Amino acid sequence: MATFELTREYIEKLELGIEQKDEKMLKAEMEELYPADIAWILLELNGEQGHYLLNLVDTEVGADILAHIEPEMRRNFIKEHLTVEEIAKYVNLFDSDDAADLLNEQTIEIREKVIALLDDREQARFIIDLMYYPKDIAGGLMQKELVKVNSNWTVSECVEEIRRQAEDVEKVFAIYVVDDEQKLQGIVSLKQIVLARKNTKIENILDDDIVFVETTAKAEEVADLMQKYDLEAIPVVNTLGRLLGRITIDDVIDFITDKAEEDIQVMSGITGEAEEDDSVWQLAKARLPWLVVGVVGSLLAATVIKSFEDEFRKVAALAAFIPIMGSTGGNVGIQTSSLIVQSLAEKTGITASLWQRLLKIILVAIVNGLVIGALAGTYIYVIGEPELFLVVCFSLLSVVVLASFMGTVTPLLLDRIGVNPAIASGPFITTANDIIGIGTYLLIADLLLNL
Amino acid sequence: MATFELTREYIEKLELGIEQKDEKMLKAEMEELYPADIAWILLELNGEQGHYLLNLVDTEVGADILAHIEPEMRRNFIKEHLTVEEIAKYVNLFDSDDAADLLNEQTIEIREKVIALLDDREQARFIIDLMYYPKDIAGGLMQKELVKVNSNWTVSECVEEIRRQAEDVEKVFAIYVVDDEQKLQGIVSLKQIVLARKNTKIENILDDDIVFVETTAKAEEVADLMQKYDLEAIPVVNTLGRLLGRITIDDVIDFITDKAEEDIQVMSGITGEAEEDDSVWQLAKARLPWLVVGVVGSLLAATVIKSFEDEFRKVAALAAFIPIMGSTGGNVGIQTSSLIVQSLAEKTGITASLWQRLLKIILVAIVNGLVIGALAGTYIYVIGEPELFLVVCFSLLSVVVLASFMGTVTPLLLDRIGVNPAIASGPFITTANDIIGIGTYLLIADLLLNL
Repeated sequence: MATFELTREYIEKLELGIEQKDEKMLKAEMEELYPADIAWILLELNGEQGHYLLNLVDTEVGADILAHIEPEMRRNFIKEHLTVEEIAKYVNLFDSDDAADLLNEQTIEIREKVIALLDDREQARFIIDLMYYPKDIAGGLMQKELVKVNSNWTVSECVEEIRRQAEDVEKVFAIYVVDDEQKLQGIVSLKQIVLARKNTKIENILDDDIVFVETTAKAEEVADLMQKYDLEAIPVVNTLGRLLGRITIDDVIDFITDKAEEDIQVMSGITGEAEEDDSVWQLAKARLPWLVVGVVGSLLAATVIKSFEDEFRKVAALAAFIPIMGSTGGNVGIQTSSLIVQSLAEKTGITASLWQRLLKIILVAIVNGLVIGALAGTYIYVIGEPELFLVVCFSLLSVVVLASFMGTVTPLLLDRIGVNPAIASGPFITTANDIIGIGTYLLIADLLLNL
Repeated sequence: MATFELTREYIEKLELGIEQKDEKMLKAEMEELYPADIAWILLELNGEQGHYLLNLVDTEVGADILAHIEPEMRRNFIKEHLTVEEIAKYVNLFDSDDAADLLNEQTIEIREKVIALLDDREQARFIIDLMYYPKDIAGGLMQKELVKVNSNWTVSECVEEIRRQAEDVEKVFAIYVVDDEQKLQGIVSLKQIVLARKNTKIENILDDDIVFVETTAKAEEVADLMQKYDLEAIPVVNTLGRLLGRITIDDVIDFITDKAEEDIQVMSGITGEAEEDDSVWQLAKARLPWLVVGVVGSLLAATVIKSFEDEFRKVAALAAFIPIMGSTGGNVGIQTSSLIVQSLAEKTGITASLWQRLLKIILVAIVNGLVIGALAGTYIYVIGEPELFLVVCFSLLSVVVLASFMGTVTPLLLDRIGVNPAIASGPFITTANDIIGIGTYLLIADLLLNL
């Protein structure tokens, strides 16, 4: 298929169709599209129009559409337009992990009613099991749907089991082999099932050298493992080694991209999950907290500068070097901290000790500080303010070293206390480095110039 | 398995083993590990030690290890320690896409010799085909290994084909169905093959409603499609619709994480692919270019400030508000541009026109500018510099609006001319916004205070 492109004209055509209740045209259009595409369309329609469209398609397609809508929009849509009976109709067809996510978005009241209404009682039990896990651990990412066989079965019994599960388990990936106590023994791939003789025992073809996680493993850890070992699905077990579910690669990819987006937002000083198409008020609100932090920091810097007012009156050119101290401190701090954040995230190889790290970073800072100092020194010589030469060069070197130190220690500390270390590349630290840079500069000026 | 943790002690044990040529211990240790883990270990050993270890394991394991080593380190390791015969031995066992990547890292001379030495001539042809595609398009991500069947075959003929391909195609995912002209007709899942009767015709069970890409599709587009439609593999066709290869999800995940890491580096002002464990000199070099840009920008700002020297002599408190103008300009610019970069990357829904975008962003800027202005105004009132009230408030509002405008237009322009728009959240724009902020402030001060 060619990639589907959503246009304003297409939406207008659908809106007109909905207004005229042109079911034939709408059904024909929806049949051409994938559920993921229809989910995009729903974002552009109002709730009532979306509800009308959802009622036109098959329940299976409708469930798939709902599974693809972004959580916040879905919560509101469901709350305002669907009855508990309708929700239950769709949730019956969801994978258990998506169903638990959808219900966790709703109020307890709706949740309980929907679960009571589910036809598929196994699905209801699955969902109740999954709802207790937080979203950022393996238990919160796993689904209960999988094909599970006993190690003493034959290949043809295994095929029978796949047939029985075929409707529930959309993508099989691998077949999980357990013993009589439900303990995970290994996996068999579908390829092996295709190629093996019918009466071969599963225990003779299973691969017992497998990677698995416990329910409490962090989502980051699951993502790292699946990426490192190129896995499409990873089994999840409890502390006794009993098989509870599996995590599929699509959920992990969503986690990886959400995490990257979150880190970038944190670094840019945006709070919450802002998107360009949010309302003016939402956007302003998402940006204000860090702007205010920046402003308060700058006003602190203003107070520092004001206390040196006499010095400025005597050497007016001092003011000219305020920006270079602030921005160099900020830039060096961000560079340092984002390298530390990156190596915290990768966890490859042996991590150096804090002292080794600091020593290296200070060396890098000195190299950079000397180059920057030389540049600024030349400038001062050219503009003819020789009395400031020593002050500016020495201040710049100190600022670079101090900001590097801060940029190393802050993310490590944040990581230690369980806060996302990417914050250390954001406005808070930039502002702190701004103030430190300017303060250092003015102190050194005061000392060296005897003002 | 428990997650493997690399420790300094473990490396020392291996180093001792290598020194004493304790093959038995080393082989036993390597058998406990996955190739991806051994690749980590190689990073910590010197080249000769690594070569010794590589020679101890089976060729299959060795090939898997080489496939997992980070490209730059691998290029040097291969150049210094492996003969062309050794390289050919491993490349024979690589997937075609990884083989093309490995050979593209080497000199033309080595490349040609290795290809000439390959036992598997089909593999040689595959590699030559793939080496011509740039890395950032579908052709450069695809592998030639896949299971392909004709639409008029039966299921049992299909099973025969899988058996024939079993060694080359490690993960089948789906079976691709083509017609007599090799044009892609649809796919059949392994699950369907397991469940169907032996003499069923493939054309009766194939799914013809599939997502595919052409060789020239951008890697970003491939990643978006696979993520949106939850695909583990996507077929690649030429302009005539003939099946050429497939892209598997592991390569796409690597692309997604590399892209996120690159964006964060670009935003933090680090050039090249710096890692915390690079040498002091490499790290200093990766950081200098943007630091120098920042310094040059700040020196420009210094020149602007210096030209207002008389004004500072008259109203020394003016200097106190230099940092707030610079940092507010910088912060607002980054916030705005990173939201624009994010929505460029997502490409969901209908994109607003430039004018709609600008209007909205200016509105957000005015809301934020008013809040920030109020804060700064209060501060000025408290410190008792009423003559600066109007100057500072009006300047802040202008700076926020200007920086928002720059933060919107720059990434859109960069994207239009094919440059990574994430640069717009980096030091270049921050510096530009710094200067604009300070310049605006001093101009407004000059006008309003009649200095």
